[in-house]
Amino acid sequence: MQPLSSTTKAYLAGFLDGDGSIYVRLKPNSTYKYGFQVAPYVVFFQSQKAKKLFEKLCGLVGSGYIRERSDGVIEYIIGKTDAIKEFLIAVEPHSVLKREQIKLMLEILEYRQTIKSEREFKKLMKMIDRFGELNYSKKRLKRVLTP
Amino acid sequence: MQPLSSTTKAYLAGFLDGDGSIYVRLKPNSTYKYGFQVAPYVVFFQSQKAKKLFEKLCGLVGSGYIRERSDGVIEYIIGKTDAIKEFLIAVEPHSVLKREQIKLMLEILEYRQTIKSEREFKKLMKMIDRFGELNYSKKRLKRVLTP
Repeated sequence: MQPLSSTTKAYLAGFLDGDGSIYVRLKPNSTYKYGFQVAPYVVFFQSQKAKKLFEKLCGLVGSGYIRERSDGVIEYIIGKTDAIKEFLIAVEPHSVLKREQIKLMLEILEYRQTIKSEREFKKLMKMIDRFGELNYSKKRLKRVLTP
Repeated sequence: MQPLSSTTKAYLAGFLDGDGSIYVRLKPNSTYKYGFQVAPYVVFFQSQKAKKLFEKLCGLVGSGYIRERSDGVIEYIIGKTDAIKEFLIAVEPHSVLKREQIKLMLEILEYRQTIKSEREFKKLMKMIDRFGELNYSKKRLKRVLTP
């Protein structure tokens, strides 16, 4: 990630609070030592209609990739551990709505490095479960965009 | 609105880009000279589950009011012309996705002051129509918030 100005960090914190998501997926996978792949994500969402401007916004971060879904939504996905850490540390002081999720993700990424037993991996899974309480579906959100 | 730091302005621009909406409603109303009430809005959306933090965020703006909808969504509504102007002028330099909408709204608010004929009012209505092209429904957006 390029060095960001304070206002760019604050802007990205605002966008993350509004239209971003922080979570970890636990994917069952027997080739992994404890039976799960741990996949952390920071994702931004936007309609494909705003693609060009959205790419400009994503360019400010630079460390993720864009995925175009079949339903007209574009996602900007930051999936690499170092990129997630760097991004979240940059925006954390400016976030108002997602501070808890940011702290939890940073704790999880830190703790994951130290795991040496199944008991410790289970503790990690419990930490990941906490996203379920902090995040909530916004599917019900219906925006009134008139006219 | 209280004086805002650059980083607060940038944060609010990011939140507006992510989860805000800028539009004007034309409400048919025969008590108005040209048959319509012109109602401009800047609105932020959030789930009621994040109410306390959302109130903190809205407190940064200060010039709107909160409306709790029956479907679990809270809206923060800035509806007064002077408040909209002040807010949009503050965030405009930082916005990436909604620059066009911001400029259009400021033009509309400016032009509205000068209207002296039905022809001019029709021009205003055409300007308002342009929001239809700039905004787009995000109803289709389904966020994946796992676990």
